[in-house]
Amino acid sequence: MSRISILMEKDLRAIVRLDLSAVDCVEQAFAALATKTVAMPPILRLDIPEFRGEVDVKTAYVPGFDGFAIKVSPGFFDNPKIGLPSLNGLMILLSAKTGLVEALLLDNGYLTDVRTAAAGAVAARHLSRKDASVATIFGAGMQARLQLEALMLVRPIKSARIWARDHAKAKMLASGFARDHAIEVAAIADPREAVRGADIVVTTTPAEKPILMAEWLEPGQHLTAMGSDAEHKNEVDPAVFARAAYVADRLSQTRILGELHHAIKAGAVTPDQQFAELGAIIAGTAIGRSNRDDITFADLTGTGVQDTAIANLALARAIDAGRGQTIENDIKMGDAA
Amino acid sequence: MSRISILMEKDLRAIVRLDLSAVDCVEQAFAALATKTVAMPPILRLDIPEFRGEVDVKTAYVPGFDGFAIKVSPGFFDNPKIGLPSLNGLMILLSAKTGLVEALLLDNGYLTDVRTAAAGAVAARHLSRKDASVATIFGAGMQARLQLEALMLVRPIKSARIWARDHAKAKMLASGFARDHAIEVAAIADPREAVRGADIVVTTTPAEKPILMAEWLEPGQHLTAMGSDAEHKNEVDPAVFARAAYVADRLSQTRILGELHHAIKAGAVTPDQQFAELGAIIAGTAIGRSNRDDITFADLTGTGVQDTAIANLALARAIDAGRGQTIENDIKMGDAA
Repeated sequence: MSRISILMEKDLRAIVRLDLSAVDCVEQAFAALATKTVAMPPILRLDIPEFRGEVDVKTAYVPGFDGFAIKVSPGFFDNPKIGLPSLNGLMILLSAKTGLVEALLLDNGYLTDVRTAAAGAVAARHLSRKDASVATIFGAGMQARLQLEALMLVRPIKSARIWARDHAKAKMLASGFARDHAIEVAAIADPREAVRGADIVVTTTPAEKPILMAEWLEPGQHLTAMGSDAEHKNEVDPAVFARAAYVADRLSQTRILGELHHAIKAGAVTPDQQFAELGAIIAGTAIGRSNRDDITFADLTGTGVQDTAIANLALARAIDAGRGQTIENDIKMGDAA
Repeated sequence: MSRISILMEKDLRAIVRLDLSAVDCVEQAFAALATKTVAMPPILRLDIPEFRGEVDVKTAYVPGFDGFAIKVSPGFFDNPKIGLPSLNGLMILLSAKTGLVEALLLDNGYLTDVRTAAAGAVAARHLSRKDASVATIFGAGMQARLQLEALMLVRPIKSARIWARDHAKAKMLASGFARDHAIEVAAIADPREAVRGADIVVTTTPAEKPILMAEWLEPGQHLTAMGSDAEHKNEVDPAVFARAAYVADRLSQTRILGELHHAIKAGAVTPDQQFAELGAIIAGTAIGRSNRDDITFADLTGTGVQDTAIANLALARAIDAGRGQTIENDIKMGDAA
């Protein structure tokens, strides 16, 4: 008998939150990426242009975690026309020792939201000034809110600014966030003004052309760009590479998908130029910020190790809380071939 | 609300069998591969050498099928030491229109067994002589039995021979099969003798060096090799390419994984040599057997379209039979980013 836990989105929302445990477990996964033999194959991608659909499958085995996740992320962009969300998906957690399915996490993308925001907290914890208190967020969607919450977990954030292409949305997020979290949050219409005096800037938009210019940045600032998870996305001016200490979540991936990819295309850096990875900084084998006036820049494209980390956390929490449904699947020894 | 069907291995064994419906649906998928815009990305492969584990993820979108399957196939080769099977896995069926998860097929590899054998039937139906009555199987495992059953669905098989490296296993399969199916089945110790006079030969072994020699083949025979699903596997003497009309399940894949791969390495064919695909023969746009004395040779490495075909069949059958469990997962419109 094999026992499989099935957790629905509502179960997962009840037991996994964007909190320090989530940040710590994602941090542990990044550190493993730098110090252990992690297996993280390239993303499998299926396109269904007929229905404006695409599916990404990501996976990573991370030594030190009992299970490894396989994440299926569909995006079907005509769904809103029929009242369905564009993004969905699930994670499968398999035992790293036996390959048996241990859990089906039917999260509709919720765990991805959490692990993505948690990576923003990890980047800020290791790259921003310890006393960073002013945060600026570009974008007004789900990740804009979560990234700001993530910063509050690791830095003494006292005030925040929101800039978004749609200023009405920025105002809505600002007022909602201020009400929920008892900090000052302002919607700012001019992106340059929003960056001025900030300690941390996080870009969370689907922009395809730079929305943050190099000359806006000030000494000591930390920048995280997390909107670029596909070749065509680009939030940050390539000239930032000449001003900032650049850190990738995974260099082999940011060279293809991230802000680095656009800087290479623009000729701002060479294709084989070496940069630190976030995991190496966590592990202490590379340096991110070397003094108060450095500008640091984290390029987060999303990695399978984050999925494996959050899926393990989810199953552990579900078992502790007795949450979800357990099904039993007969398994038997097959004939030898 | 999204409704998801969960089907366990025992449910799937009850509703999906190796029968003409399974053969026809796999045939339809191969035909689509030749005539429609199928999306079938390269296999995602994760290795966990620490536990002698490997995981393949395959997928394919096939126009004409409502859903597409993502198949997760773990192989953990130390499992038998702790009383677990090496091979497991599941398929996820997603709507091709919305990307929503429609079914979780916890088949532990059963559906793969069926769709693999069904492909053998499709190859025999389109390549072997119509009156083929003598079948030879190399190997004595699960696929040896299923491939022989598959041939009986499409050709008037009257007798069969089994050869396997372990002759005792060949004898066991032969006597068991003869008892269950009321045909003559003999275990034959000499592989050359087993091939002599056969109409169809199917190799199903994990051999890494040729076990079937070119000079053994006789005019009119059809050969299917289905054991080579990885780079190092090789059942058929490259010299067969000079004697037989070769047909790939997917040329881009057999060049890397199949018998073709070894023939290219041996210099028996050039890397860019063109061959027919099974789908084109089904669709009538290529010719497999042009006369009674041709030797035909199908190289089956396993394709995502077969998984999509069998997964759609499984869900349709489950709905008809009211089988399995249905869970409901809240889905809601997310914030816009």
